Amino acid sequence: MGNKAVSYAGPGKVEVIDIDYPVFELKDGPGVNPANVGRKVNHGAILKVVSTNICGSDQHMVRGRTTAPEGLVLGHEITGEVVEVGSDVEFIKVGDLVSVPFNIACGRCRNCKEGKTGICLNVNPDRPGSAYGYVDMGGWVGGQAEYVLVPYADWNLLKFPDKDQAMEKILDLTMLSDIFPTGFHGAYTAGTKVGSTVYIAGAGPVGLAAATSAQLLGAAVVIVGDLNEERLAQARAFGCETVDVSKGDPKDQIEQILGVPEVDCAVDAVGFEARGHGAGSAKEAPATVLNSIMDITAAGGALGIPGLYVTGDPGAVDEAAKHGTLSISLGTGWAKSLSFTTGQCPVMRYHRGLMMAILHDKVQIAKNVHATPIPLDQAPQGYAEFDSGAAKKYVLDPHGLIKV
Amino acid sequence: MGNKAVSYAGPGKVEVIDIDYPVFELKDGPGVNPANVGRKVNHGAILKVVSTNICGSDQHMVRGRTTAPEGLVLGHEITGEVVEVGSDVEFIKVGDLVSVPFNIACGRCRNCKEGKTGICLNVNPDRPGSAYGYVDMGGWVGGQAEYVLVPYADWNLLKFPDKDQAMEKILDLTMLSDIFPTGFHGAYTAGTKVGSTVYIAGAGPVGLAAATSAQLLGAAVVIVGDLNEERLAQARAFGCETVDVSKGDPKDQIEQILGVPEVDCAVDAVGFEARGHGAGSAKEAPATVLNSIMDITAAGGALGIPGLYVTGDPGAVDEAAKHGTLSISLGTGWAKSLSFTTGQCPVMRYHRGLMMAILHDKVQIAKNVHATPIPLDQAPQGYAEFDSGAAKKYVLDPHGLIKV
Amino acid sequence: MGNKAVSYAGPGKVEVIDIDYPVFELKDGPGVNPANVGRKVNHGAILKVVSTNICGSDQHMVRGRTTAPEGLVLGHEITGEVVEVGSDVEFIKVGDLVSVPFNIACGRCRNCKEGKTGICLNVNPDRPGSAYGYVDMGGWVGGQAEYVLVPYADWNLLKFPDKDQAMEKILDLTMLSDIFPTGFHGAYTAGTKVGSTVYIAGAGPVGLAAATSAQLLGAAVVIVGDLNEERLAQARAFGCETVDVSKGDPKDQIEQILGVPEVDCAVDAVGFEARGHGAGSAKEAPATVLNSIMDITAAGGALGIPGLYVTGDPGAVDEAAKHGTLSISLGTGWAKSLSFTTGQCPVMRYHRGLMMAILHDKVQIAKNVHATPIPLDQAPQGYAEFDSGAAKKYVLDPHGLIKV
Amino acid sequence: MGNKAVSYAGPGKVEVIDIDYPVFELKDGPGVNPANVGRKVNHGAILKVVSTNICGSDQHMVRGRTTAPEGLVLGHEITGEVVEVGSDVEFIKVGDLVSVPFNIACGRCRNCKEGKTGICLNVNPDRPGSAYGYVDMGGWVGGQAEYVLVPYADWNLLKFPDKDQAMEKILDLTMLSDIFPTGFHGAYTAGTKVGSTVYIAGAGPVGLAAATSAQLLGAAVVIVGDLNEERLAQARAFGCETVDVSKGDPKDQIEQILGVPEVDCAVDAVGFEARGHGAGSAKEAPATVLNSIMDITAAGGALGIPGLYVTGDPGAVDEAAKHGTLSISLGTGWAKSLSFTTGQCPVMRYHRGLMMAILHDKVQIAKNVHATPIPLDQAPQGYAEFDSGAAKKYVLDPHGLIKV
Repeated sequence: MGNKAVSYAGPGKVEVIDIDYPVFELKDGPGVNPANVGRKVNHGAILKVVSTNICGSDQHMVRGRTTAPEGLVLGHEITGEVVEVGSDVEFIKVGDLVSVPFNIACGRCRNCKEGKTGICLNVNPDRPGSAYGYVDMGGWVGGQAEYVLVPYADWNLLKFPDKDQAMEKILDLTMLSDIFPTGFHGAYTAGTKVGSTVYIAGAGPVGLAAATSAQLLGAAVVIVGDLNEERLAQARAFGCETVDVSKGDPKDQIEQILGVPEVDCAVDAVGFEARGHGAGSAKEAPATVLNSIMDITAAGGALGIPGLYVTGDPGAVDEAAKHGTLSISLGTGWAKSLSFTTGQCPVMRYHRGLMMAILHDKVQIAKNVHATPIPLDQAPQGYAEFDSGAAKKYVLDPHGLIKV
Repeated sequence: MGNKAVSYAGPGKVEVIDIDYPVFELKDGPGVNPANVGRKVNHGAILKVVSTNICGSDQHMVRGRTTAPEGLVLGHEITGEVVEVGSDVEFIKVGDLVSVPFNIACGRCRNCKEGKTGICLNVNPDRPGSAYGYVDMGGWVGGQAEYVLVPYADWNLLKFPDKDQAMEKILDLTMLSDIFPTGFHGAYTAGTKVGSTVYIAGAGPVGLAAATSAQLLGAAVVIVGDLNEERLAQARAFGCETVDVSKGDPKDQIEQILGVPEVDCAVDAVGFEARGHGAGSAKEAPATVLNSIMDITAAGGALGIPGLYVTGDPGAVDEAAKHGTLSISLGTGWAKSLSFTTGQCPVMRYHRGLMMAILHDKVQIAKNVHATPIPLDQAPQGYAEFDSGAAKKYVLDPHGLIKV
Repeated sequence: MGNKAVSYAGPGKVEVIDIDYPVFELKDGPGVNPANVGRKVNHGAILKVVSTNICGSDQHMVRGRTTAPEGLVLGHEITGEVVEVGSDVEFIKVGDLVSVPFNIACGRCRNCKEGKTGICLNVNPDRPGSAYGYVDMGGWVGGQAEYVLVPYADWNLLKFPDKDQAMEKILDLTMLSDIFPTGFHGAYTAGTKVGSTVYIAGAGPVGLAAATSAQLLGAAVVIVGDLNEERLAQARAFGCETVDVSKGDPKDQIEQILGVPEVDCAVDAVGFEARGHGAGSAKEAPATVLNSIMDITAAGGALGIPGLYVTGDPGAVDEAAKHGTLSISLGTGWAKSLSFTTGQCPVMRYHRGLMMAILHDKVQIAKNVHATPIPLDQAPQGYAEFDSGAAKKYVLDPHGLIKV
Repeated sequence: MGNKAVSYAGPGKVEVIDIDYPVFELKDGPGVNPANVGRKVNHGAILKVVSTNICGSDQHMVRGRTTAPEGLVLGHEITGEVVEVGSDVEFIKVGDLVSVPFNIACGRCRNCKEGKTGICLNVNPDRPGSAYGYVDMGGWVGGQAEYVLVPYADWNLLKFPDKDQAMEKILDLTMLSDIFPTGFHGAYTAGTKVGSTVYIAGAGPVGLAAATSAQLLGAAVVIVGDLNEERLAQARAFGCETVDVSKGDPKDQIEQILGVPEVDCAVDAVGFEARGHGAGSAKEAPATVLNSIMDITAAGGALGIPGLYVTGDPGAVDEAAKHGTLSISLGTGWAKSLSFTTGQCPVMRYHRGLMMAILHDKVQIAKNVHATPIPLDQAPQGYAEFDSGAAKKYVLDPHGLIKV
């Protein structure tokens, strides 16, 4: 059987290629860690991909900011129908419609047992934590494809209770594989509670998902900051306040909204590719967002930091940043007794609850992030448009199953 | 200055009487604990009462189910404007519009320091915990009056940031003194999370407030059970599912709603005056609600129990219940690893966040509980109608300040 | 290969019999749930049992207080060496020395993913939660045997890092399968913190383990109550204070120890077979312990309830208790805002940390519970002596591997 | 009445001077914020100081690393006997022997109500949070004196239950005002649990208190790192492992101790005056400790950061550090999903529990930090010796009340 897939083809380029139909073994290929080559995956399931989204973190690779090899198959936001299961799979069945957490986890190590599936110890020989189709993550083949292998299927997969109902809400449910839980993790670890005032730095899809999550958690006011007016308009469309960080210090704009120049909680949904604020907004300034949210968060607050910070960035503006070292105003945070939560979202901690909220019409995540389905073949255009700042979340539809 | 107030006048009777205008001392009177007589209250504030609600727990006294003395001034749900402050008050100012938590707390004992204001050690000589206008609670004069004294004003009072804005939402904000936090405490301690399915036993004002709170916490489905069809209709009016417990086992009705016969979380918003389910619903069965919610909550769930259980109940159906002893199917709960949280809600833990949610239009608690303002003089009718099962929350308006 | 095992042989009787050597399938036999018969266990491991302890909860069956069938192989406290692994086992290896949590869990269901391994949804067709060698728990064969099958080995087993070191501390490590985590769960869910005063009801092995755990959690004072002077002496031997509940109200004795008649936290390590206090101590009074610990716990405290309460008890003193219904002074608890945690301990949540504490000499659990190794053949005597109140924890040694 | 006190007399100099006996008002003086001048303190108590310790954070001022004015009276670690109470004090009585949390808090603001007493909003006009005798903290007069005024006495003071018993353990109890809770906060917010492996950076008094706390919390292994061999010997004296950071990367030394090159939790008990590791250990490197503990903490761990980081440091090694900006390897932390807790310890959250542990002989904090009482007059020598790296915690004894 054929299997079309989206692959990285060098800086600024993605292309649709033909790859092998998956088998229950991790074969050698671009980016596969040697220690993972030949690994048996009888605990895995093969999925016919129903939807698979383009993620901002894919852009880091596509922009050439990483050491990703050419030919790497992209895609870690995957929803699909189980078409085959390995011999060790006991509870997931052929025909199940499922969401795949982007973080691959074994369900057997100490971290998985503690619910820390973002830093599983057994799936990536390089370091704790893994993902599909991502550089230095073990080499698990990406899911922007017609078919994909998901290891440890009984552990990883979230089954939707009713297929027909799920297909009607598929553009919402497709966000469960990454950005909705990731945004939620940001809002949650920032300590968002009923009645909180929350600032979200970044109005890309993760930022909008964090804003949606803050609302779901009962926030009184959600303020989203960005440089991109189109994305800010998207945030306003579902009831957020906005701050245009190109127009000066967020603190002043927050004061105009709230009457006080600070919020209870803040989320960094931008990460290391941040740009400066105000007049300096044209150029990259990797610690800007973090320093800014320390500045605007009230004493005693917490910062959720789902935005990616890397240990090495060949394309960084200066030597320090190339080694992942940033100039951080730690004294500001310390004086305010702030706390910080960093890292990949452990999707499994949140996806079931968020699925329930979607299925019972409590949240409209697809609308809020402007989910936009396109055929798999149009992935290159989708990447290009997203990179140019389109206020959309592109959802690849490899089999033409999404009805809008 | 005069001071009209609502007082208990024997089983089934309340009346409006004239009492003294408050001073900064706790004087002797009906229900005042001898050890509290003459207590200086320079830390107190005198409030012109803007709104003060009739509470289901007042009904326990009015029905003669307690040892409350005649002449006891009722009322522990108080919102008002500060008209005078004691010499030790530093931050609360004359003119502030404030919400008063029903639980009186000193802000200086171990429990207050730990945020357990419902069991303050310094305000009630009989036992930890106190309230205005309530039997065996130390004797602090009730607030169903034109004016009331609030001790430890800097600690207890929640100031609304803008008086005009607050007066426009006064029917919502008046619920901050008790039932909104109390309902929230039930939903919160039951472990309600984004995506939870929640059962609320009781569609009285606390039950409806718990249902509202569960929604605010992101519940996927909120199911309210009661015997009173009018109250169930009120629950449906804001998006709850309902179960009529007079029509049989709630479990079956829950299965029809959810597809499974159990919920993630449950709240007992009824307490010791519960009636049986199904055919037995005519007579009191004090452990019915508790046994029922153990039965319908999934293994691993939690039960929030804000509904009042007493240590003595002279009017109980049997000897055991007269001493507060109930027949509980503990084995059922144990087999499911359930956990239980009982007791008065520590209002201060929640009221600020809920105020923010009200002020920023995230919740409509007044509408949901059917807040119904009436003049202080009509308190006797309000008590009678509420006792007969009216699906309303009566708000006394001693100075005619509430505009609807 | 042969396989000697301890089985229930009718009320008051256990005997050592020959059973089949395990295979990777759950075969029919005494107590095996029909829905589990023939279940494939390729995810399992076969253990050569190094130590397997007699538990107080086994006594419920042996006393004939349950519907356990004759021939049921007993034993859910198991430590052993892996001698064979199923085809799906990936991380556990032949030769590993491991502790087996008494609660069998699949590592794939919602509850397991949330760390609630005591109420796994996939191992017991009757209800959530399972255990080896126990009535109504699915029929998994008990481990008081030479060899035993452990399902979902990669998920369930805790490997000791160094076999030689582990064999030197085997009498401590053998307590990790049940009573040490169970006692810890009691102390932990009771809210024991650094500086707490803690009351433990019951000086049997679980009570002593709870007392040890309270010390490990930093409690300032640990008080153990029981009727059995020998067991109380055992508690005093490692620094606990004691209360002889046959000598009257624990409250008075607590006041003599602490200067106040109440503690911060309490643990019920007795359960439904409780006897009365004071003069009534001769006869069973199933709610005595629970009512007592509500009475002696300070307002705002929590109760950890690892002691077993059942849904049915054919041998109970009255009709209500036969159906698991107890007369509980709920009003007392409610007035004090107490909270309660019931149910099986999810061993996996605690066993790794407790293992580390043992291996680094921070705790001497074997000494504290008076661990006493005996050959498997002497199991009948061990059961009898334990039932008669010996202050010992009997550890069966099927292969003569334990050196003392 | 006279009042001898220790004051800052310019870089490197402290001297004992005569100041006014306190009154219930904050008078003008060196370092008093103009907005605080003349503030009434009827809620205060005057203490005869029994013990008052020299703190590492005092050294920052004495070294001239801050803008502290000459004449500032030092001292925020205070234990004393109440000799006078203001008119608003209700529960604290003359004669009480009390511990004073170093963070001054009002007990009336939002942060105090939430237990965040380290960032009280009402005591320091400059920013949230305050302390006695400290630059930019509002100007409350320090307690290295014979007598001191403590505001909001009912809220702030912890009364010892028995004066005689307390005087016998005064060298332990004197650590409750700051370093014991501060070290505990570090260990606790780092997530230390029963069985954890913990690294403490810094073997000064706070580091030793953190190590003691980690033991009290049940840690399996506590490893302390420093450059100062005498201080490391002190850590070994109570059962810690040690790492000499001048001898190379802590990671390697940790691997030798634990068998793995990482710990579960880490505490930064050094702060901004850190020096480099290995060959670079001679010179200041303000981000060294933070980067090091990110490096050695296992994925999923947490870092407790009680070590002080400032917003401005005139004496810093480079321009960035002068403004409190440090070069932090955030990517390392992010890849491991680490979380961070910074800021002043809210002493009130912990001091009561730690007092109970001291009074019941569960911990020997005085011995562990090598508490060394000296007369008030010898404060200058004490400061000098402490600054030169003496492995001692100096306790000033203004009235000669400490018996050793």
